[in-house]
Amino acid sequence: MHRPGYFSITAVDGAARAALLHTAHGVAPTPIFMPVGTGATVKAVAPDDLEAIGAHIVLANTYHLYLRPGHELVQRRGGLHAFMAWHKPILTDSGGFQVFSLSGLRTILEEGVEFRSHLDGSKHLFTPEKAVEIQRALGSDIMMVLDECVAYGTDYAYTEQSLERTTRWAIRSRKAHPAGAADKMLFAITQGGFFKDLRARSIEQLTGHDFDGFAVGGLSVGESKNEMHEFMDYCAPLLPADKPRYLMGVGTPLDIMHGIAAGIDMFDCVLPTRNARNGTLYTSLGKVNIRRKEYAEDDSPLDPACPCYTCRTFSRAYLRHLYATHELLAYRLNSLHNLSYFLAMTSGAREAILRGRFAAFRAGIEALYAA
Amino acid sequence: MHRPGYFSITAVDGAARAALLHTAHGVAPTPIFMPVGTGATVKAVAPDDLEAIGAHIVLANTYHLYLRPGHELVQRRGGLHAFMAWHKPILTDSGGFQVFSLSGLRTILEEGVEFRSHLDGSKHLFTPEKAVEIQRALGSDIMMVLDECVAYGTDYAYTEQSLERTTRWAIRSRKAHPAGAADKMLFAITQGGFFKDLRARSIEQLTGHDFDGFAVGGLSVGESKNEMHEFMDYCAPLLPADKPRYLMGVGTPLDIMHGIAAGIDMFDCVLPTRNARNGTLYTSLGKVNIRRKEYAEDDSPLDPACPCYTCRTFSRAYLRHLYATHELLAYRLNSLHNLSYFLAMTSGAREAILRGRFAAFRAGIEALYAA
Repeated sequence: MHRPGYFSITAVDGAARAALLHTAHGVAPTPIFMPVGTGATVKAVAPDDLEAIGAHIVLANTYHLYLRPGHELVQRRGGLHAFMAWHKPILTDSGGFQVFSLSGLRTILEEGVEFRSHLDGSKHLFTPEKAVEIQRALGSDIMMVLDECVAYGTDYAYTEQSLERTTRWAIRSRKAHPAGAADKMLFAITQGGFFKDLRARSIEQLTGHDFDGFAVGGLSVGESKNEMHEFMDYCAPLLPADKPRYLMGVGTPLDIMHGIAAGIDMFDCVLPTRNARNGTLYTSLGKVNIRRKEYAEDDSPLDPACPCYTCRTFSRAYLRHLYATHELLAYRLNSLHNLSYFLAMTSGAREAILRGRFAAFRAGIEALYAA
Repeated sequence: MHRPGYFSITAVDGAARAALLHTAHGVAPTPIFMPVGTGATVKAVAPDDLEAIGAHIVLANTYHLYLRPGHELVQRRGGLHAFMAWHKPILTDSGGFQVFSLSGLRTILEEGVEFRSHLDGSKHLFTPEKAVEIQRALGSDIMMVLDECVAYGTDYAYTEQSLERTTRWAIRSRKAHPAGAADKMLFAITQGGFFKDLRARSIEQLTGHDFDGFAVGGLSVGESKNEMHEFMDYCAPLLPADKPRYLMGVGTPLDIMHGIAAGIDMFDCVLPTRNARNGTLYTSLGKVNIRRKEYAEDDSPLDPACPCYTCRTFSRAYLRHLYATHELLAYRLNSLHNLSYFLAMTSGAREAILRGRFAAFRAGIEALYAA
């Protein structure tokens, strides 16, 4: 049994919701974008910067931290919050997605998944129970069950077999971390590939159990945007209205707007940080590829509407110079801005929902990024 | 004629001096360590961090900025201060050291030095006048004359010929930027290799002209520590007592203490930032090689005596994890700390001089780093 009122919906606008998610490390307003901190650090960005731009929940990766520095080492440091000096909520994924990406290096068993480390080839077994154990050691506020995320194009028969196993694994995960056993939440991950009946079955099976939240997994794996959006629209309303809904690994500003409109509350994606490192920056004036020569003498801020340190302090010309000369500072300044943009965009969406004006807000973002 | 009182000595302790250097962008207390920002950025460290750790003067490199993004582009941006958002003093070296390091790619003429860019092989000519022109365009507060820095082991005859040319170039530089022509200072660089009579001659020739300060160049080029210290001791007292003395490109904490004791006021070196990127960190407990396994479970701060963000916030265990996993954040946190250490060390030396206790302060640093 989860704590009553841990997820309180403040306002609804169409299917979009504004809510508060109460965790052991504070309250997170939703819809929310969660910066990805795979290796116990959001790449190039320290907690002081994350605080300054209004991050509330940071992700960390079970697979990567299990391998390095090891979950037990993190536990002996007092857990991830103490280790990485992030004192707001942390969500850890189960490592399933990473393990299943190791094609050729892993074998799926009923018990769990056997895999070889991408670092040194050493052999490991992740079971649903082990994934929970690792995440409890890490001390995250929101844990994810071990699931199998099937590749795009997987056939019906395998997808069906896989989702049934994912359900069995989820039930084992919940047993390993019973509801109410601690102030740590456990979210299930619904699967089902690109077959609506299988999506519905996965959701039906999993929502029959008392998870603290439900994720939609297995999207953004190579399908078209239309398919992705179609499946968001299909799945979101099938998820319980009174629990947080999390769309894993998605996405662009347009995808996130689509997800919010469909009733999704939580998003994570490496896009803002990865693109920052590639010089692709998101602004209130549209995308800026800071590598381009046209910015060499551009004295304007990257985004005149953005209050982040990068935009308050530096010109596009300077950012272009840093990028062109491969200066390390480029990574921090670009990542800081892109995260600031995604965080402001989702908190802007929240404000719009509170005022019943989400459709107009979304239209503004769409006008910027529509092809 | 330089402005009267631009360099005011507050206290003397033996040969060591504490002074204030007044520039167009504020007052810098000396002895001072100046972080190196070659490409208009101190690598991995932004101005907010530099402010927080008490940097007063930042270096930038004429050669690198001339090539990328170009001094005229920087000038059109309002100069280096505006471009890199550093509003305290900036010192630019003349580019001489970099050009003379391009062995095989450069030819020395009386007029100046012809060289090929290390980036694209394009051909360029730096004259003393051109070096001043570039630095004026960059808008630095302290400009350095174009000089020739001879390699360690250069013979007497060449060293003599070279220092004479360096003197002629310095006089041409001063003509190109007459004393009092602007609130920008121009420092001469004394040379003379490892021959005391030539060092004395270079100093005698250059101090006969009205430069705003004098540097000792051509040390830390491969000689032994004993030789370096011997030449510091020899040169420093020959420089005018009433003008700033700058030891270029030096050095370790021990070297800096030696220089301060000899009466040097200003220091710059890539050591703290370069070593930070290699995982070698300076602390009040001695050097820490953060790569080492022994820090994997060390929950103590990197330096318990350091007030920098890195030491206030993170453990050695976390810093070791970031370094071991090649995380970008390691570069910022390590660089920030090492610079903080060097800045605190030189400002500590200043405080000690003001109290007539520099010898004891130096002994403390020596006890930490003596082999």
